This record gives sequence, structure tokens and C-alpha cells, in this order.
Amino acid sequence: MSIAELAPAHIRAIAPYPPGKPITALAREMGIPVERIVKLASNENPLGMSRLARAAVEREVAGLARYPDQFELIQGIAERHGIDAERVILGNGSNDLLDYVARVFLGPGLSSVFSQYAFAVYPLATQGVGAESLVVPARDYGHDLDAMRAAIRPDTRVVWIANPNNPTGTFLPAGAVHAFLQAVPRDVIVVLDEAYDEYLPPALRGDANDTRGWLDAFPNLIITRTFSKVYGLAGLRVGYALGAAEVIDLLNRLRQPFNVNNLALAAARAALDDHLFLAESFELNLRGIEQIVAGLKRIGLGHIPAHGNFVTFHVKDAASVNQRLLKQGMIVRPLGNYAMPEHLRVTVGLESENARFLTALEKSL
Amino acid sequence: MSIAELAPAHIRAIAPYPPGKPITALAREMGIPVERIVKLASNENPLGMSRLARAAVEREVAGLARYPDQFELIQGIAERHGIDAERVILGNGSNDLLDYVARVFLGPGLSSVFSQYAFAVYPLATQGVGAESLVVPARDYGHDLDAMRAAIRPDTRVVWIANPNNPTGTFLPAGAVHAFLQAVPRDVIVVLDEAYDEYLPPALRGDANDTRGWLDAFPNLIITRTFSKVYGLAGLRVGYALGAAEVIDLLNRLRQPFNVNNLALAAARAALDDHLFLAESFELNLRGIEQIVAGLKRIGLGHIPAHGNFVTFHVKDAASVNQRLLKQGMIVRPLGNYAMPEHLRVTVGLESENARFLTALEKSL
Repeated sequence: MSIAELAPAHIRAIAPYPPGKPITALAREMGIPVERIVKLASNENPLGMSRLARAAVEREVAGLARYPDQFELIQGIAERHGIDAERVILGNGSNDLLDYVARVFLGPGLSSVFSQYAFAVYPLATQGVGAESLVVPARDYGHDLDAMRAAIRPDTRVVWIANPNNPTGTFLPAGAVHAFLQAVPRDVIVVLDEAYDEYLPPALRGDANDTRGWLDAFPNLIITRTFSKVYGLAGLRVGYALGAAEVIDLLNRLRQPFNVNNLALAAARAALDDHLFLAESFELNLRGIEQIVAGLKRIGLGHIPAHGNFVTFHVKDAASVNQRLLKQGMIVRPLGNYAMPEHLRVTVGLESENARFLTALEKSL
Repeated sequence: MSIAELAPAHIRAIAPYPPGKPITALAREMGIPVERIVKLASNENPLGMSRLARAAVEREVAGLARYPDQFELIQGIAERHGIDAERVILGNGSNDLLDYVARVFLGPGLSSVFSQYAFAVYPLATQGVGAESLVVPARDYGHDLDAMRAAIRPDTRVVWIANPNNPTGTFLPAGAVHAFLQAVPRDVIVVLDEAYDEYLPPALRGDANDTRGWLDAFPNLIITRTFSKVYGLAGLRVGYALGAAEVIDLLNRLRQPFNVNNLALAAARAALDDHLFLAESFELNLRGIEQIVAGLKRIGLGHIPAHGNFVTFHVKDAASVNQRLLKQGMIVRPLGNYAMPEHLRVTVGLESENARFLTALEKSL
């Protein structure tokens, strides 16, 4: 007997998440010098970390390497959202929190609902605990909330919604999400994954999109956020979830006591207050989307309307184009694992990186 | 109906791991200035991070905040132990890896075996997946391997062994562990948690204790190690496991792609090669144990023979003594959650910290 047979079938069947190709990996594989490689594949902030966050890390590194204390960051997040600290939980990236939700609320004989083309971690978290994934066909590459409501079965315990969605960049107006919450049975957890929320322009967000304000009315709502995107801390791993105190308490049962590292805690606390950096990042992203969209138009390629920090565009033979981009030291994200073999996703970079991407893309066609 | 009732009973029954009191928490609670507090409660390295590790973090912070790439560290660990990279997996601390083992190999209707007074994460990881904990009475506060072998039932899938053990500091000679492995059915995973291994003096370790050499003969063996102890990176969160390639592959199915942050990766890679720091830390620890043991003897308190970077000593009313220590700004670890209400665990600190501890302890009796 093989040792692997000791694991249940649902674990053995997991195909691990394929991350964006690291710069170092491309350098190793194709012998391209690191400094000649541009990576626009993982929706990282092209400005890196905020100045305040970096200063906080440097202060923290100079101290002793103690086990981390989450108090200050939880307090800061609670104040920012105007809710009690007991309604906040930190994760080693928001991915960590999605796993906790699956481990608490799902299991064999239960199911979760999510949209076709939704974030790849939803099926992974579901399968990881032996539950069934109910995938609802997308409408214009985005969530079809009516169909998702109809897909909920008696054994459904979790619905995952990404807004804006990765990898498509689609967006659901606040009114539609609120109506969905009202229609969903109260014993079904709705995870509203807002990893890209901070990139929404004020016109789209508006006061109506204060989803934190819905938590009192919907104890089955869990909102997840991350410091990996506009805050520029992808490499440090810190995300958070907001929810009813009793739900957060359950998630905390599975949280490892030191799940977030101390440099991430220090950086995230400082980043929360670096309003200038957030404004710069937001503006850079908005201009970058305009630049990329204009370039795609010029080249003659269509794209899905972009609401995050990336543009997902249509190109027939995406795998070949991706290979030709890699040879030029340009890393973007192929979406084969999302069953979108005719699309590529490019992260918004600095103006010069976006320009280099457009030139390389044109050469690759 | 309360939302909490949607979680299975085994999740609702979890009492989360109580971490050592952070310095900042004591400062908040008792109004003691941070600089007057000594924390010898969580088995951290009193020298902090190695110089090479700190320099690596500083270089990494200056770069862009990309999602992490684990390649270099896995390669370094594989070379250090002379095994293939596919037999190494990284964790967000070794705690993370213990969770993966439970999630792959345990579940409702299955059981795990561990010793009374063994590391608190074993019952937590077991309960977190709804499996049963079979706790074997300790012998002289250490693992009774014969009784543990006898406790294995047909539904047992995992045995957890900490060597040296936390929180007691007891040690099992290599020969005894090897004999145990030979006696255990090959379809039972044995996790050998060697978090404190690097503190063993050469006389105790010897060539015979090259547990990595046993991996070929025992595909059911998983060895876990950490950078949180002698390497001084507790705050950065990085541990690793070694095992059969097919077992490591299964654990990787549950690993979040970015489970270890990029500063931890850089620091750990550098720390692996900082032999001078490791030697200094080892010697400081050995002298510190002598200093603490001599002090306890002078005061008239007994202790459990210490093989890690901490000394667990006997004091009748440990809770009261702990309170009096806290009031003096001295944080050690009470062991009530281990059902050891008459013991306290003190981490070896700098010489001056150990002296301050002994003075404070004498005052507290």
C-alpha cells in the first residue's frame, strides 16, 4: 500500500493553485537577467510598499524577534471600520481566512456556491474539506447573482462572491449584492471577498457600498479584505475578515496563534494610515488602466471592463502569446486554469512597464 | 438559530491555544513600561535574529513587495540535509505543517496518539478536524513510547512525538525513537517534531540521531523543524517538514501558495548559513541553563531535566507566583493549560535576564 492512499480521495484530487510565475523562476528557466524581466502577473502594487510601512518594518527588524502580537493592528482595523475589535480576524493573507471559512462551515456532504471564473481559491478551499463545488455559469464574465441564488441547495453552507472579481475584473453594484443578501437563507454564509475594493473609483463605490454597514443586519455575512493589493504588502501576508462576533470567534478556533508575522503586523498598521500612498497608488492604477486599455484598442484586442488593478484581455491563442511574452522577459498571467484559454490577465504596472508590455504584446501577435 | 450552530460540535468545542503573554499586553494591562519588562515565556532566542538574517531582511525590504518565491529556501534546506527538494515543504511556522498533517490524515472517526504534557498544538490540530485524541500518560514528564505504541488503535492514523518535548524539556534518545518507528504499523504517520533539536549538545545528539537518515526506511515518518527557536525568527514564521516525496506532495495540496512571507524566506535562507550565530546561541543557551538550574537549586526548587531553551521548574502555587512575577515585569509561562498547575516554564534569556528572573522568583515565593 502506498502512504498516499491514507489520504482521503478529495485531498488526493486537489490540483494545487498555480501562482503567477516569479521573476526569479523565469530568470532560472530562460536565463534572462532578473533586471530585464517585468512581472505584471500577480496584481501586486507596482509602487511596492508604502514609505510608512517600510519604515515600520525597519523599526521592527531592529527589535528582538519576538512572537507576534496582533492587538495593535486589530485595533486599527476596527477603528477604521467603526466596529468592535471582536468582529475582526487577521489572516496570513486573506487566503488563510477563506480556508478557515471552509474548515468551519463546510465538509463532506455539504456544498458551496460560486461563479464560473471566480477566484481559484474558492474551489480549492471547498475541495480541501471534502465539500462539493456548485459552479454557476457567469454572465458577461461576471457573477450571475440570480442564478447563484437559485443554485443554493439545502446542503449549501457557503456562497463565495468576489467583488471586484479576480481574474475577470467584473464588478457588482452594491444594490445587487444587498438584494442578494436579502434573498439568501440566513443559515448560508456569504463571503464577500473585497480584495480589490480599494481600486474602485468613488463614483462606483459611493456611500451605498459601505458593506461593513450591513454586518448588523446579516450575521451570515463575512467580508474579507487584504493588504496584498493597494497596500502593497503581498509579500508580507496579511489580510482580514469582518463579521458577526460569534462567526469571528469560530474562525479564531482554527487560527494558529501566530498566523501573521510581526513585520506584516507592523507594516500593515503603518500602511493603514499612509493615505498619501493609497491615493498615489489609486491614481497610478487608474491612469495605467486607461493606458493599457487604449493600447489594446490600438492593437485591436478586446478586454473585459476592468475594476481592479489588472486588465483581462482577449487574444486567440493565449498560450502561444504568453510564451512569446515570456521570451521577452514579460510575465503576465495565462488563465488556462480558469478555463479561459483565449484570455490573458495583465497587472497594471508603472507607466514604463505598461508601455513595455504593450510593445512586447504587439510583437507577440 | 444562532449562526454558530452551523459549525460542527468539534469546532465549537475548541479552546484556542493560549500564547505566552506579549510584552505589549503586560504593559497595557499593568501599566508597566515596556523597557522594564522581561519576557522569558515563549522560548524565543534572546539574541534575536542573526546578523546575516537581518541583513537579508533589509535587502529584501528595499525591493518591491512581490508575492514570495520559495525556491531558494527549499533548495538550501534540501542541500543542508542532503535530500531531494521534493521531500521538503515550508510552513508558516511548523504549527502550519502540523495542521496540514491533521487535515490530510485525520478526520471524524479517526484518532491520533500523543503523550500527556506534549505540545498543545497536537490536540488542537486533532480536534480541528474532528478526530479523537488518545493521550498517553507521561513517564517522568516525558513520552512513554511503549505505552504510546500500545495505545495505537486500528483507527489511529497519526502519532505526534516532540523531541525534545515542549513544555517539559524531556528528551528521547535516538535509539528509542528508532525502535518505536520499527514497532509502529507502516500505515500510521509518525510526526517527529524537532523544534528544539538544535539545542541538543553533541554528546546527546551524536551521529545516531541523524533522523533524516531514517526517511528512506520509513515513508510514514515526517520530521518537522522550525526557524523560530535557535535561528531566532519566531516573529517571521517559517518552519519546514521533511518526509517521503508522496507525503510531502499530499501536504502541498493543502498549502496556500504564499504561506511563508518573503522576508521570512530571505531571513531563513541567510540564517541557515550563519554558523557563528548558531554557535553563539547554542553556547549562550547552555550557560543560561546552568545559571538557571544553579539558581533554582539555591532557592530550593526542583526542575525537570532541560534539553531545550527553557527550564520547567516546580513551584507549589504556580498561578500566584506567576502573578507576583508579572507585577515585577517578569513574564514566564504558566502551564495550567497543560494540567501542570505546580510548574512554571522559563525561557533561557541573556545572562542579565536570567539573573533578574531568579531575583524576581525569590521575591515571589
